[in-house]
Parts: sequence; C-alpha cells; structure tokens
Amino acid sequence: MKTFRASIDVMPHDNLLDPQGKAVSNSMANLNLAEISGVRIGKHITLQVEAKDKQTAEAKVDEACKKLLANLVMEKYSFSVTEG
Amino acid sequence: MKTFRASIDVMPHDNLLDPQGKAVSNSMANLNLAEISGVRIGKHITLQVEAKDKQTAEAKVDEACKKLLANLVMEKYSFSVTEG
Repeated sequence: MKTFRASIDVMPHDNLLDPQGKAVSNSMANLNLAEISGVRIGKHITLQVEAKDKQTAEAKVDEACKKLLANLVMEKYSFSVTEG
Repeated sequence: MKTFRASIDVMPHDNLLDPQGKAVSNSMANLNLAEISGVRIGKHITLQVEAKDKQTAEAKVDEACKKLLANLVMEKYSFSVTEG
C-alpha cells in the first residue's frame, strides 16, 4: 500500500449566490482594494489516502467528496491526487 | 488594465489543531473510507483583480490575503494568479 495526498476544492456552484463572498467583495473597497471583485469562497481540503495505486486513491477521494465533503446540490468539487 | 484571476488557499497552520478536519477524519471510518486520514480543512477563494500587469495583481492579492482573507496567527495562505 502506498500513501497518496489529495488536494480538494469545494466551491459553490457558479449560478448560486455566495453571500460570504459578496460580503468580502464589498469589504475590499473599504481596504483600498477596489480592483478586486467577484470573490467566491469555498473549502480547501487536504487529506491522505492509503491505496494500492493512484486510480484506487482517486476513486476513494471521489467517494469521500460525494458522501461527505461536498453538498452536490449547492457545491461542485475538483481534486488532484499525488503520491507520497 | 487587464483582468487577472486569483486562486487562493487559506489553511490552518500545520502545528495547529484542526477540530473540523479531525471530526471529518473520524467520520470517514463510518463511511467505509478508513483509508482516509489526516483531513485538514481550510478555505478556497477565487477572485478577479484589475491590474496593469501580473506583478501588480499578485501584490494586490497578497495585500488582500494579509488584510482580510487570512488570519495569519492561525492560518497560512498560498495563491496563484493567471491572466484572463
């Protein structure tokens, strides 16, 4: 068995409002950062997986995203898996 | 002025406990995903910046992270900036 590291991004769907991101966008102007807009905030998750190969590790991470890490009604996810 | 997209990860410091990640790690075993461990949960932020070049855009994003997006006492951040 090898150890793989996964890096997962869970973001609100593009066509969904993101009130937290909107609030941060609005705050940027007050900090002299009016050049910044369109802030969207999601989750970044890192974890380790034990698996016999990269394909199996990716399948496990995908399962974890579907079952627990992302709410697929409101969120989309993407991930990358690297060995070691 | 060009538009740049920034992708920012804000994570709890390595030597800090992450209770949310710990809770998720423990839940994995109940979902037949005992191969997964060491879950750490942070924020993933995407935004747009108007700037004359990439260097200026990176400086603006760095400023936004320091001033608003990350709490440097408890969190570390990393980001990448791409044009368009």
